[in-house]
Amino acid sequence: MTQVKIVEVGPRDGLQNEKQAVPLAVKLALIRRLADAGLSHIEAGAFVSPKWVPQMADSAAVLASLNLAGPVNYPVLVPNLAGLEAALAAGAREIAIFGAASETFSLKNINAGIQDSLARFEAVARQALAAGLRVRGYVSCVVGCPYEGDIAPRKVAEVAAALYRMGCHEVSLGDTVGVGTPDKVLAMLDAVAAEVPVDRLAGHFHDTYGMAIANIYASLTAGVRTFDSSVAGLGGCPYARGASGNVATEDVLYLLHGMGYTTGVDLAAVTDAAWQIADALGREPGSKYARARGRVSAGTPR
Amino acid sequence: MTQVKIVEVGPRDGLQNEKQAVPLAVKLALIRRLADAGLSHIEAGAFVSPKWVPQMADSAAVLASLNLAGPVNYPVLVPNLAGLEAALAAGAREIAIFGAASETFSLKNINAGIQDSLARFEAVARQALAAGLRVRGYVSCVVGCPYEGDIAPRKVAEVAAALYRMGCHEVSLGDTVGVGTPDKVLAMLDAVAAEVPVDRLAGHFHDTYGMAIANIYASLTAGVRTFDSSVAGLGGCPYARGASGNVATEDVLYLLHGMGYTTGVDLAAVTDAAWQIADALGREPGSKYARARGRVSAGTPR
Repeated sequence: MTQVKIVEVGPRDGLQNEKQAVPLAVKLALIRRLADAGLSHIEAGAFVSPKWVPQMADSAAVLASLNLAGPVNYPVLVPNLAGLEAALAAGAREIAIFGAASETFSLKNINAGIQDSLARFEAVARQALAAGLRVRGYVSCVVGCPYEGDIAPRKVAEVAAALYRMGCHEVSLGDTVGVGTPDKVLAMLDAVAAEVPVDRLAGHFHDTYGMAIANIYASLTAGVRTFDSSVAGLGGCPYARGASGNVATEDVLYLLHGMGYTTGVDLAAVTDAAWQIADALGREPGSKYARARGRVSAGTPR
Repeated sequence: MTQVKIVEVGPRDGLQNEKQAVPLAVKLALIRRLADAGLSHIEAGAFVSPKWVPQMADSAAVLASLNLAGPVNYPVLVPNLAGLEAALAAGAREIAIFGAASETFSLKNINAGIQDSLARFEAVARQALAAGLRVRGYVSCVVGCPYEGDIAPRKVAEVAAALYRMGCHEVSLGDTVGVGTPDKVLAMLDAVAAEVPVDRLAGHFHDTYGMAIANIYASLTAGVRTFDSSVAGLGGCPYARGASGNVATEDVLYLLHGMGYTTGVDLAAVTDAAWQIADALGREPGSKYARARGRVSAGTPR
């Protein structure tokens, strides 16, 4: 039995794109249910400008309600040194920094080109590591970019290698637009794995065109054993109207458990959590699994 | 560039589970749009009891409106000799017969055990072949069964081999319940390919738990080059409330074209057709691709 690690990103990457305000109590209930389901890595917030991402304005309050010294990791997104200071003040034990493999996306998303952003992140990583935090790296647009189209695997490898060299314990490779197909994902992973050990890589797939589960399966065949996913498929894609965003944790667990991988996560309990947050948001869960199963109760094997 | 064949099953396998009556004109418009989009195999009806499948009661009228001597194949489902006679009278050039790899499913679905059903189909196939028709075989429950759970690959291989021996030019392997994951699909294909040449096999995947595209990708790695799919993902699964049914043609085309396969099918035109039938049925298309793209106009490469 091979272990696969799931990094649950629903409370951050998922909720940050919600149009309606999500009350703190709803977020905390979601995070607690996810932790109770066995998820040990739950992205819990972001210390970014509330002007740009109002949904994350209460991240300090979220962290204040969590057991940050316990077995569950609650990474938070940090864009710069000011964000790092706020994360440290809130007690964060792990941060995530986020680069892009597309120059145009980087400029539009964080107002800095790739090289400038890496220099900025290096300073953040250095201080975070010195303060004893763990640092996770993201690379977005690893297959395609909404502005530039196809992205060369070599570009992804360069950015991933830079994040790894600055001390990231893990580099998450994001198909932000969901345009990837398995062949392109494998070509990208091949290039990246030449620079970063494959056991330090995570796959982060959006399901815009329904390819995410196939891309995860392809990544498994390439040796990747860590995947990001979002309960209930939370997180619409801002680049495609009506499109789904992050791959749903329930569907990923169905794939992994069906293939005999262990995750330590209870699929039924995650499905319960998916229905609860979907009810709170006034819609159906975005996962095929949760919709097909309906509201179930916990108790499946992990 | 490798060619992949798509067998469009929306007008039959898709619409047969619709609760609302679908007018003949709506069906015909759908079939014409699919043919115009470049689909050359379109399952157009079923000569089964209208008591059990009322949506297919107008299959003779459907065939009467199509060009059955043209380049597009319009197979129809036939359960027995009476059905074959009706199909012949309606001018059908290709029929499909449908066995199951699960004894219980076979008994419940067609009121005959596997061996009895194969004997019945053998008579149908013999007469159909003698009349110059092409015969396609289906095997359902090739990974799991709603009544029996897991199905042994050996059972699937036996039924597929029987259909092939009785003259089916192609045997379509159906994960009817959508429970399969790629490892199980590959194990099943391995067993079947020992009995039937892989270029005579088709994959028919339901997307109940979101695994269909991954299972198609796995099947491609095993050499399968024919897949059944349903425009707009038409066809809910009768075994799981709220669940999706057949994998959507648009998502399959996105996968195939993204990987460099040619299909002869215009994805944008199929997406138009998906929106038109979804509008007629009063809901959104079931494919991620169509929902993400919205209503587009034809013109993408085939």
